[in-house]
Amino acid sequence: MERTSVPPIHNVAICGGTHGNELTGVYIVREMQKQKMEKAGSVSVTTVETNPRAVAAGRRYTEMDLNRCFTDVLLSSPITESTLYEVRRAQELNAQLGPKGSAEAVDLLIDLHNTTSNMGLCLILRPNRNAILSVIHKILYFKNNLSSVPVRAIQLDIPSSKAYSLESVGKHGFAIEVGPQPNGVLRADIFNVVKEALDLTLQWLQKFSSGHSFEGGTVEAYTFVKSVDYPRDSAGKATAVIHQNLQDNDFKLLRSGDPIFQTFSGDILKYEGEDLYPFFVNECAYYEKKIAFHLAQRKTYSFPPISVKND
Amino acid sequence: MERTSVPPIHNVAICGGTHGNELTGVYIVREMQKQKMEKAGSVSVTTVETNPRAVAAGRRYTEMDLNRCFTDVLLSSPITESTLYEVRRAQELNAQLGPKGSAEAVDLLIDLHNTTSNMGLCLILRPNRNAILSVIHKILYFKNNLSSVPVRAIQLDIPSSKAYSLESVGKHGFAIEVGPQPNGVLRADIFNVVKEALDLTLQWLQKFSSGHSFEGGTVEAYTFVKSVDYPRDSAGKATAVIHQNLQDNDFKLLRSGDPIFQTFSGDILKYEGEDLYPFFVNECAYYEKKIAFHLAQRKTYSFPPISVKND
Repeated sequence: MERTSVPPIHNVAICGGTHGNELTGVYIVREMQKQKMEKAGSVSVTTVETNPRAVAAGRRYTEMDLNRCFTDVLLSSPITESTLYEVRRAQELNAQLGPKGSAEAVDLLIDLHNTTSNMGLCLILRPNRNAILSVIHKILYFKNNLSSVPVRAIQLDIPSSKAYSLESVGKHGFAIEVGPQPNGVLRADIFNVVKEALDLTLQWLQKFSSGHSFEGGTVEAYTFVKSVDYPRDSAGKATAVIHQNLQDNDFKLLRSGDPIFQTFSGDILKYEGEDLYPFFVNECAYYEKKIAFHLAQRKTYSFPPISVKND
Repeated sequence: MERTSVPPIHNVAICGGTHGNELTGVYIVREMQKQKMEKAGSVSVTTVETNPRAVAAGRRYTEMDLNRCFTDVLLSSPITESTLYEVRRAQELNAQLGPKGSAEAVDLLIDLHNTTSNMGLCLILRPNRNAILSVIHKILYFKNNLSSVPVRAIQLDIPSSKAYSLESVGKHGFAIEVGPQPNGVLRADIFNVVKEALDLTLQWLQKFSSGHSFEGGTVEAYTFVKSVDYPRDSAGKATAVIHQNLQDNDFKLLRSGDPIFQTFSGDILKYEGEDLYPFFVNECAYYEKKIAFHLAQRKTYSFPPISVKND
């Protein structure tokens, strides 16, 4: 593929606490603020604790999931007395780090998340055509896969106006999703992995900004296909738990006939359908969203060699 | 030791949801209620979802930790408009399953809990002299250690009047504490282990009630010595996370010089003191209680052969 020139990354925002009970990002951001970490080479670094009220309450959110508030509709809705806290907060963050879709938006927005699922470190990206994000993925993939946790890319194909998550406010953006870690708990192993991933990303941004060019290549990404709910009784209550063969086996190919649920009375329910890759298996926050797990296809994408386009 | 005759166990209460985000007990109790499980041989079985408001909210408690409300002082405090929900609920439960310390109290109370710590299955007992509980421990120890998770006994030496937990309401009582399981998540492996432990306990109670006698023996128990808090800055904020060598290593002997904390800036803090056994390492609910982990001594106790004393 032909070399692509990409506009420079002058500034990056590192965000934590978008979900108040996902503690890795909260403590990473606080430590960066304590260290007054405001520059990485020539790149400006902004750190934001995005949902302080939810962090203080030790909950995912207080009135509405903040990471579902960054659609064009909600970002432009008038603020009234009855506007939910998180919608208000999303508009503040959009003013600080965006506005989304504008030339003033931060060049790169990284939002730090945790999951109770056994997903290792995932970069969750929207556009698949984004060469910069592909390169960052590749770097983390080679570094981290060798040392501590598997690194994967998940792709959600949602148009920008409907994209509901914080990272959609930046010109480029991705979420770093790491697990398993219980909500409300901070684990050293996961703290260290995320810190390493951020350090590598910032090192790469410095090299890129100073004119270094990077090889092209391919990247494997998991593309969301559908969600699977728990089986339910006539009153809508779940009647089963994730089967122990599926539990902790995110990204292990699920084939027709594999057990996926165990009912509370002991029966086993099996998967029927095309071979797909499960992820977010038994994620705590998805109980209320009626999602037992997601299913994805795995595809390989090519990305071109890149270098910085001079201003 | 001489054979001991023990009063019969006519009835047992199995309780779940004392902490509303510890889901194994909630779902075990609901399934037993759905199956109309009211007898095990000649033994009456009562099942109780003890803190339904906290279960509905998906939180440990709503106004006060219910499992700290069963002291004589709180159980006899007058109910006023400002009485906290959980204190009110404790008095209701004491009326239903107690009164604590009376002849009317349920013969055996089993309360089902989860922890985010890697503790396997623990029986948490108050009195060390209780032959019945020692026998139950022994049975679970031999059955479960062989199959799926380690089984241990933890002993808290608190006089009955000051005992704050639900199981103190029964004539005999223990908590079954199983982990690791994130709050708000239900795992099949842990559901199955607790179900197996309850089935074994009920089988044993049937045998005991029908006149079967049981050999004496010894049981190893961990006795609480002290709690260790996180290191904190001058504003009282934690400055470190449990070190990854200690994380998930509950009940592995901690020796002077072993790392116990990693500060957010990367320093390692070491343990100083006598060799002791850590437990409840990085338990989510203990962050607010300012407990990073507990430390215990391990001791061996003897218990006598027992048989039922006829009424």
